[in-house]
Amino acid sequence: MSEQQAVLQQFRETIHKIKSYEEALGLLYWDLRTGAPRKGMDTRSESIGMVSGEMFKLSTSPQLGEWLSALEEKGSFEELTEIDQRLVSETRKEYDRSVKIPPKLYQEYVVAAAQSENKWEEAKAQNDFKGFQPYLEKVISYTNQFIDLWGAKATRYDTLLDQYEPGMTVSQLDKVFGDLRDKLVPLSAAIAASPHQPDTGFLRQSFDKSAQKSFSLYILEQMGYDFEAGRLDESAHPFATGLNPGDVRITTRYLENDVTSALFGTIHEGGHALYEQNIMAELTNTTLCTGTSMGIHESQSRFWENVIGRSRPFWERYFGELQSRFPGQLDVSVDQFYRGNNIVSPSLIRIEADELTYNLHIIIRYEMEKLIFDGGAKVSDLPELWNEKYKQYLGITPPSDAEGVLQDVHWSGGAFGYFPSYSLGNMYAAQFADTMEKELEGMWSLVGRGELLPIKEWLSERIYKYGKLRSPSELVQSVTGKPLDPQCLVDYLTKKYTDIYKL
Amino acid sequence: MSEQQAVLQQFRETIHKIKSYEEALGLLYWDLRTGAPRKGMDTRSESIGMVSGEMFKLSTSPQLGEWLSALEEKGSFEELTEIDQRLVSETRKEYDRSVKIPPKLYQEYVVAAAQSENKWEEAKAQNDFKGFQPYLEKVISYTNQFIDLWGAKATRYDTLLDQYEPGMTVSQLDKVFGDLRDKLVPLSAAIAASPHQPDTGFLRQSFDKSAQKSFSLYILEQMGYDFEAGRLDESAHPFATGLNPGDVRITTRYLENDVTSALFGTIHEGGHALYEQNIMAELTNTTLCTGTSMGIHESQSRFWENVIGRSRPFWERYFGELQSRFPGQLDVSVDQFYRGNNIVSPSLIRIEADELTYNLHIIIRYEMEKLIFDGGAKVSDLPELWNEKYKQYLGITPPSDAEGVLQDVHWSGGAFGYFPSYSLGNMYAAQFADTMEKELEGMWSLVGRGELLPIKEWLSERIYKYGKLRSPSELVQSVTGKPLDPQCLVDYLTKKYTDIYKL
Repeated sequence: MSEQQAVLQQFRETIHKIKSYEEALGLLYWDLRTGAPRKGMDTRSESIGMVSGEMFKLSTSPQLGEWLSALEEKGSFEELTEIDQRLVSETRKEYDRSVKIPPKLYQEYVVAAAQSENKWEEAKAQNDFKGFQPYLEKVISYTNQFIDLWGAKATRYDTLLDQYEPGMTVSQLDKVFGDLRDKLVPLSAAIAASPHQPDTGFLRQSFDKSAQKSFSLYILEQMGYDFEAGRLDESAHPFATGLNPGDVRITTRYLENDVTSALFGTIHEGGHALYEQNIMAELTNTTLCTGTSMGIHESQSRFWENVIGRSRPFWERYFGELQSRFPGQLDVSVDQFYRGNNIVSPSLIRIEADELTYNLHIIIRYEMEKLIFDGGAKVSDLPELWNEKYKQYLGITPPSDAEGVLQDVHWSGGAFGYFPSYSLGNMYAAQFADTMEKELEGMWSLVGRGELLPIKEWLSERIYKYGKLRSPSELVQSVTGKPLDPQCLVDYLTKKYTDIYKL
Repeated sequence: MSEQQAVLQQFRETIHKIKSYEEALGLLYWDLRTGAPRKGMDTRSESIGMVSGEMFKLSTSPQLGEWLSALEEKGSFEELTEIDQRLVSETRKEYDRSVKIPPKLYQEYVVAAAQSENKWEEAKAQNDFKGFQPYLEKVISYTNQFIDLWGAKATRYDTLLDQYEPGMTVSQLDKVFGDLRDKLVPLSAAIAASPHQPDTGFLRQSFDKSAQKSFSLYILEQMGYDFEAGRLDESAHPFATGLNPGDVRITTRYLENDVTSALFGTIHEGGHALYEQNIMAELTNTTLCTGTSMGIHESQSRFWENVIGRSRPFWERYFGELQSRFPGQLDVSVDQFYRGNNIVSPSLIRIEADELTYNLHIIIRYEMEKLIFDGGAKVSDLPELWNEKYKQYLGITPPSDAEGVLQDVHWSGGAFGYFPSYSLGNMYAAQFADTMEKELEGMWSLVGRGELLPIKEWLSERIYKYGKLRSPSELVQSVTGKPLDPQCLVDYLTKKYTDIYKL
């Protein structure tokens, strides 16, 4: 074995170890959120802390740094396979990011973030922004220290964005979000002014939970979710977690008085899961065996939930089956049902927002995060700023901070730069759908016949199988032949809602 | 902080880490056996291997050896608390055992044992002892190398016994098993000759699984199993696993045509779980936070399953409730039901054996293990030896090796010295019950009224809370005022079956 081969083997073994730790941690968390007994949680948290700590130690070890340098040497790097090259460059990126933060500072931050999350929960319940303010200030101060240590890019906020959407910048987002905002605000207003508002009353009844569950399982199966490589459980907040490509679990939450909440939640998480179940086998046991970014991951959950699951052909195929599971309860036409599940209406709470106005919630948060890190906004100004933007973009004013600036957990835990992923997901999804319509003949007829597997196959071949082997921008370019283009989402929404609201 | 305090702190942190790894591994295994998707199992096994390897590295690190030596120094050791002293001596024992085996040899053994287990499964299905023989020989050869490395005690087999029942010896077991055998063989014969054989026909019907489950849950609750510190799931082979004292899980398996199989299985695992749920908080996060030996652990499962769960007072209290869950199906008297659940009859298969003859199955295996490691028996002789002993002690001859020497998985995986734990459990259970009857006033009236919590409390105070803080022999002596005494089991069985079979 040559020296380079020996280094590569040790490097790959370390990556495999990190991945095994991730699998163990993934299961420890999954279990906490699905059914771990209450009294074991404190000790469990300590175990999670220990395993995370060992993983962090391994990911930042000087030995790993040496192997990386050896593999990056001119001459050496070029001899690596495409997968190994990407593994080296991705690991380098993570390595540099991690070793730049002194362990002590990071530990202080973890404690501060945990305290801040706890305080946020209390502050939200009591509508007490003032009480939360010092905690949030502390978390922001740590985040600013991290930006200094990592090094600011073109803007300080760019450094944060790059954590979740590698390569994404304020310069690019200002443009796409600007376009989006300029077009969605008037579209939203036109919808609000339409006399053709859908009826949603029939959706609010008592719907048997086991029938909801069996329908959710049926739709997952139709989507091509592999139940031999996953399972569906319940949790307070639905999520998907890929322990390995043969074990990608999802959870949902059944609401008795809402027949589609759990279903759309399941389809959403199912979309995340299809991504992780279909990554090429060559990436198993490497850190490339996951979605390439939060935005691309979100594009898959939203593609399945919104583009497919809230489409007219989908319900033309499946509404009869849903009706038959709730005899006498859904005595409406397919059209009424389809329109009832696609109402657009400005609202206060992001996670309850519709497919269109959701993006305005995100743009507000994006603009505020920029103000925090690059615009000199003070934490004490955030509630007022928030309310102004809601008035401006959505035409409504939160009656309380609990329903305003305090509604999301993200900032309390330091997840700045994450929010844009959600709208990026919507934009990527629409752009992928646009290409799919052109390439996959009769795509909507397939959906109308319940033949969803060719759709899953197309996504697997074009997107899923690559895992982290392609960056988000490489992926979008290679699949759609152009960079991120917000017009696809605008067109998709305009077409859809012009029909529904007869604009 | 003094130097000793600093060493102690680092030592305790390492022990805590080992315990956290154990928790993660415990969950990874629990998940594999209760519901992990099939396609993820290969990668899961690799993750388990990695985490086990890291734990082993930590448990055998030279650094840990240095801390142990420092803490054992004259003067230092005496200043430690009772818990720390025990932690040091237990860790030393494990440490010495582990470091004496070269890692390479151990890895070879793990592979050989896994291959042998696979082959055993096939050989049992095909009744092919000859095909299994070379695999078993290999596992025995590794075991003999381990005995040489660890150092043989008074006998070679003593070294194996000590792994599962610390301090137990052939010299002691020969005596107690000899007494037991001499008294149980004639008792078993007298029972077989009795004209008063219980009826069991009514037990074989189709019993609704959900009703079985709800009754099992009810009985667990009656026993004082804490559902906020555990959960009940299903698996092919029932087991209990203590991840931490606040998370002690059990599994069971429901048989449609047997109304008590799952129930007694649940009570059995519930007994194991009560032990682990009630260990004193001071031992949490240490390796003393578990049962003190396999035999003592088994005494608790068997105490609850047999001594309590198969007693007349228990069914006088609970039979009505069982009847009401299966309307029209259990139309017999309490006496008939009680006797039907306590038949004694020599049989071929250990895990299906009754409370009395079970011990003869164990004594046979004990005698054979002695012959393998100290008596020069060849593997090729085992089937014949097995059949001779079954003829001698149980009066029956296996019609095939599949129902004879191939029935148990233990030897294939190298678990020599484990079998005696089961009968030790029966003996300890009877001896503890004997003391409980004297100390806990009206014990059987409590059972007859369904007041099981005082029984759980007594066991917690006398046994459970100590975890591994007392050795098996210290525990038996302190609880019952005498060493292990097989006469308690003989007396218990004689009294019980003299009544049932009207001897």
